[in-house]
Amino acid sequence: MFANNDKAVILLSGGLDSATTLAIAKEMSFQCHALSFDYGQRHRFELESAAKVAGAMNADHRIVRLDLSAAGGFGHSALTDDIAVPKEHSDSGIPVTYVPARNTIFLSIALGYAEVIGAFDIFIGVNAIDYSGYPDCRPEFVEAFERMANLATAAAVEGKGRFRIHAPLIHLTKAGIIARGLELGVDYSLTHSCYDPSPQGEACGRCDSCRLRLAGFASAGVKDPTRYQP
Amino acid sequence: MFANNDKAVILLSGGLDSATTLAIAKEMSFQCHALSFDYGQRHRFELESAAKVAGAMNADHRIVRLDLSAAGGFGHSALTDDIAVPKEHSDSGIPVTYVPARNTIFLSIALGYAEVIGAFDIFIGVNAIDYSGYPDCRPEFVEAFERMANLATAAAVEGKGRFRIHAPLIHLTKAGIIARGLELGVDYSLTHSCYDPSPQGEACGRCDSCRLRLAGFASAGVKDPTRYQP
Repeated sequence: MFANNDKAVILLSGGLDSATTLAIAKEMSFQCHALSFDYGQRHRFELESAAKVAGAMNADHRIVRLDLSAAGGFGHSALTDDIAVPKEHSDSGIPVTYVPARNTIFLSIALGYAEVIGAFDIFIGVNAIDYSGYPDCRPEFVEAFERMANLATAAAVEGKGRFRIHAPLIHLTKAGIIARGLELGVDYSLTHSCYDPSPQGEACGRCDSCRLRLAGFASAGVKDPTRYQP
Repeated sequence: MFANNDKAVILLSGGLDSATTLAIAKEMSFQCHALSFDYGQRHRFELESAAKVAGAMNADHRIVRLDLSAAGGFGHSALTDDIAVPKEHSDSGIPVTYVPARNTIFLSIALGYAEVIGAFDIFIGVNAIDYSGYPDCRPEFVEAFERMANLATAAAVEGKGRFRIHAPLIHLTKAGIIARGLELGVDYSLTHSCYDPSPQGEACGRCDSCRLRLAGFASAGVKDPTRYQP
């Protein structure tokens, strides 16, 4: 495989997709610098999961604080606000769990961080197949961000390198992601997907994110190690 | 002129350029929502200036906290870190006051905020003439960001509107910016430009930002109302 020893920044939410993405970056021999965000999200168990996942893969891990909650003026999503997380799946439109411009904001901060540490490779675990209707999970968004990034930064403009936004899961199904992660030794019991966990951190099993996860494990023919509410 | 009554988000640093940009947005009859960032910058007087400028123009004003300082892992600029702000101007290369991906990060958060409040117009006071060598002040960067923004967001993808990044100062000289601002009644005594002010908030008169400001006022034939260190 690769043996590049270059640094890479990996957006790590603590969920299944980003854990798999980190494992892929590691497999490519990148020195992995994982970045998580404390942005006022309801599902804060994510951050503990992110720390555990990064630890298990010996990645450097940093949490950036950024107030995207209602108090910070960004209250418009069921993930940060008091809007209830829906438990019945709807196929139409963009879900209420959408956080405006979230991946754009996270990638922008990852870009700044990459420039600081001398990395040109940024990994994000977006997925266009089971993407739940988020516009910022599509290939055309990732490409447009990469193009912009190479005009935005001193490192690129001075010719030191070219930024690449890697989205290695973008064309995989959830089952395909899980199969790839298991191949790479990802411990999915450390990851967290539920949008609306119990106070003890047990997954609800009914929100969009739990449904996608459960269907993915079922279709991969593997038992989901997540603790679900009884 | 215009009479649109639409909402706009204006990036407001408290400096001369962003104050003029806010005045231009107001002149275009936008309902102005100014956004400032508390990102660990050394020149914190900016934030007080931003509040005064927004107040003087009756704009809504919000400060977003985001740790881009050394402690947050972003210590690589004389504006946030303990690197000395240079007092002798150099024409070559990108200055040490460059903060990696700063305008990208600020525009991304402005984009999320715009989507939350239902705005499609975002104003940034970048300037490609006297831009001090920052890559993220060039027209090609602004255009690439706008293109990306319209692929990133639910509001754009669902066809509710098209985001526009306005950079009304981009082709103006500093003297031109000041002349335009005075025409619109901007009170430049409220603005703050110095990268390295005294503890009392007096400008140093020698950093790149002070030099550009002083030269701009001189060339516009107007007295700079800033308090400089004796």
